[in-house]
Amino acid sequence: MPSRGTCRYISFRAMPELRKDPLTDQWVIIATDRARRPSDFIREPVPSVPSGRICPFCPGNESKTPPEVLAYRNGSGANQPGWSLRVVPNKFPVLGIEGDLDRQGEGIFDKMQGIGAHEVVIESPDHVLSMTELPEKSIEQVLWAFRDRMHDLKNDRRLRYVLLFKNQGEAAGATLEHTHSQLIALPVVPKRVQEELEGAKKYFEFKERCLYCDLLRQEMKAAARIVTETDRFIVVEPYAARFPFETWILPKQHRSHYEDVEVDHLANLAWVLKSTLRRIEKALERPACNLVIHTAPVQEFANPYYHWHIEVLPRVARVSGFELGTGYYVNPTPPEEAAQFLRDVKLT
Amino acid sequence: MPSRGTCRYISFRAMPELRKDPLTDQWVIIATDRARRPSDFIREPVPSVPSGRICPFCPGNESKTPPEVLAYRNGSGANQPGWSLRVVPNKFPVLGIEGDLDRQGEGIFDKMQGIGAHEVVIESPDHVLSMTELPEKSIEQVLWAFRDRMHDLKNDRRLRYVLLFKNQGEAAGATLEHTHSQLIALPVVPKRVQEELEGAKKYFEFKERCLYCDLLRQEMKAAARIVTETDRFIVVEPYAARFPFETWILPKQHRSHYEDVEVDHLANLAWVLKSTLRRIEKALERPACNLVIHTAPVQEFANPYYHWHIEVLPRVARVSGFELGTGYYVNPTPPEEAAQFLRDVKLT
Repeated sequence: MPSRGTCRYISFRAMPELRKDPLTDQWVIIATDRARRPSDFIREPVPSVPSGRICPFCPGNESKTPPEVLAYRNGSGANQPGWSLRVVPNKFPVLGIEGDLDRQGEGIFDKMQGIGAHEVVIESPDHVLSMTELPEKSIEQVLWAFRDRMHDLKNDRRLRYVLLFKNQGEAAGATLEHTHSQLIALPVVPKRVQEELEGAKKYFEFKERCLYCDLLRQEMKAAARIVTETDRFIVVEPYAARFPFETWILPKQHRSHYEDVEVDHLANLAWVLKSTLRRIEKALERPACNLVIHTAPVQEFANPYYHWHIEVLPRVARVSGFELGTGYYVNPTPPEEAAQFLRDVKLT
Repeated sequence: MPSRGTCRYISFRAMPELRKDPLTDQWVIIATDRARRPSDFIREPVPSVPSGRICPFCPGNESKTPPEVLAYRNGSGANQPGWSLRVVPNKFPVLGIEGDLDRQGEGIFDKMQGIGAHEVVIESPDHVLSMTELPEKSIEQVLWAFRDRMHDLKNDRRLRYVLLFKNQGEAAGATLEHTHSQLIALPVVPKRVQEELEGAKKYFEFKERCLYCDLLRQEMKAAARIVTETDRFIVVEPYAARFPFETWILPKQHRSHYEDVEVDHLANLAWVLKSTLRRIEKALERPACNLVIHTAPVQEFANPYYHWHIEVLPRVARVSGFELGTGYYVNPTPPEEAAQFLRDVKLT
């Protein structure tokens, strides 16, 4: 086939930047020539008015969920109304709690049974569509429930990791609108967490300091990526943010395990979480959003190198063949600009 | 806070299965209780009728793109009509070709300039919305263009990897409807490819055989996951498929680098690719779809352990907080069922 020329198009735009996530060694392309402001993104927003469908998470419909594994209530009986928070097994679990792992080979392939737990945290009896519509006291209860469930699931030695997460909005994977979180307990340590653990350990072996503690200090000093700060927590746009407006909440106190958080910090965390989600909702007009808690594996002892934290991931940019093919991300919004937008949001 | 009960919901459904990708050691949950048939998935299909907007990729609009870097044409001048395929720099590149890498630290962080190439392969002068509407001869030209561009970009020693990919449909990241592919040349080897390379190398050190060659033989024998087979290629649903209807095209001939493919195999590959995409389009009703070519890094010599291949990734399932938090995937469609569906599609 005939081929021609190799003239190259010279771009006069600002140079994109490759930034490395210090935890996972993953490179992210901060491509500042593309969409960057909140108004530039495609959106499938979270509706603000309920659909009116019958909701299995509302009081009175307790029989529409599997029996509860935990509830905070004022004297009423299990699986009856009168609760302020309920944790139930997911009706369509991705993993089942009964049985053995039964590790097997199939020629060159490996498999095991999908043993684990998949639970739903119904955050409030009120049928609201976003966590930001809950009072701080209810959000604090959610944080307590996360802790209680981790302490309980830890007793099952088959379970090596408990992932706490939240899908808000259809584009983020939510199928029910009543505000809820989820928990999946796994017989393996997730790939992404394993990468963070290894990155943090390597750094500790080199410096004898926690990478996250160093990151906290550097970010507080630089200030450019900080969204808010309290006595206990900082809210920061990570240096190598994968997604526009990706936001992390980091505790100032070093703890490797979420379940070891000091309980009198939870009220402050509830305030920080609510105000962060409200800033993101205002800046991006109720975007679909995911939230995950990264913590050390439940069967391991407290360690000096890993540092639990919350990652908030607005779902406003589409993932293309480039991301799927490389495992790298293109982020059109520099985290410094995202931090500025979020700081400038008026919360009142 | 008061806490209650630990009664567990017992599921009588089929047990989900955890399967490990032998290349990347990534576990995938094959959760057979959830959506699994083509009709169960949400879709943002690729339209079948053009929007009527002015298209910068159509003949006569050559001035609306940066000047071409490659074209197959019959005697006409560069950047004029008369071409059957054109490769142009992306007008909004995620990486720029000019400058030095300029690696730098920022305290604990690392960055470098976003040096690389970002090009668009305009697959045909015809304004069609899917590669399946092209004659096989045009698809063969696309495969030639991929090869030609890799050979050219290889000469730039700063570029370590060339990713060829295709986004079809908005949900897959496409912004223009005229059928096209893309190429991004990177100064680093992508994380996902690096994991495949390392997995394949580890296997080779252990067995002195290529993992993909073993996989080919095992899959052809088992037959359950095979979609089609020719003298030169097999089309297979991978054992640990991350997504419903994820489909791989593997050459039977061992080559680590796509650009080293024997050119008389390309006509057969064009047929295999077109029929595979048509099966997926029929089964899932023109789903948004990504396609990526995984190949060894351009600056490295041919090796006996890596094996180039094409991955086709229909975008019919939503990614949730679980996938983002763990790096693991939940796939509701066992690849054996997907293979059966695709085999059963009538192409005439």
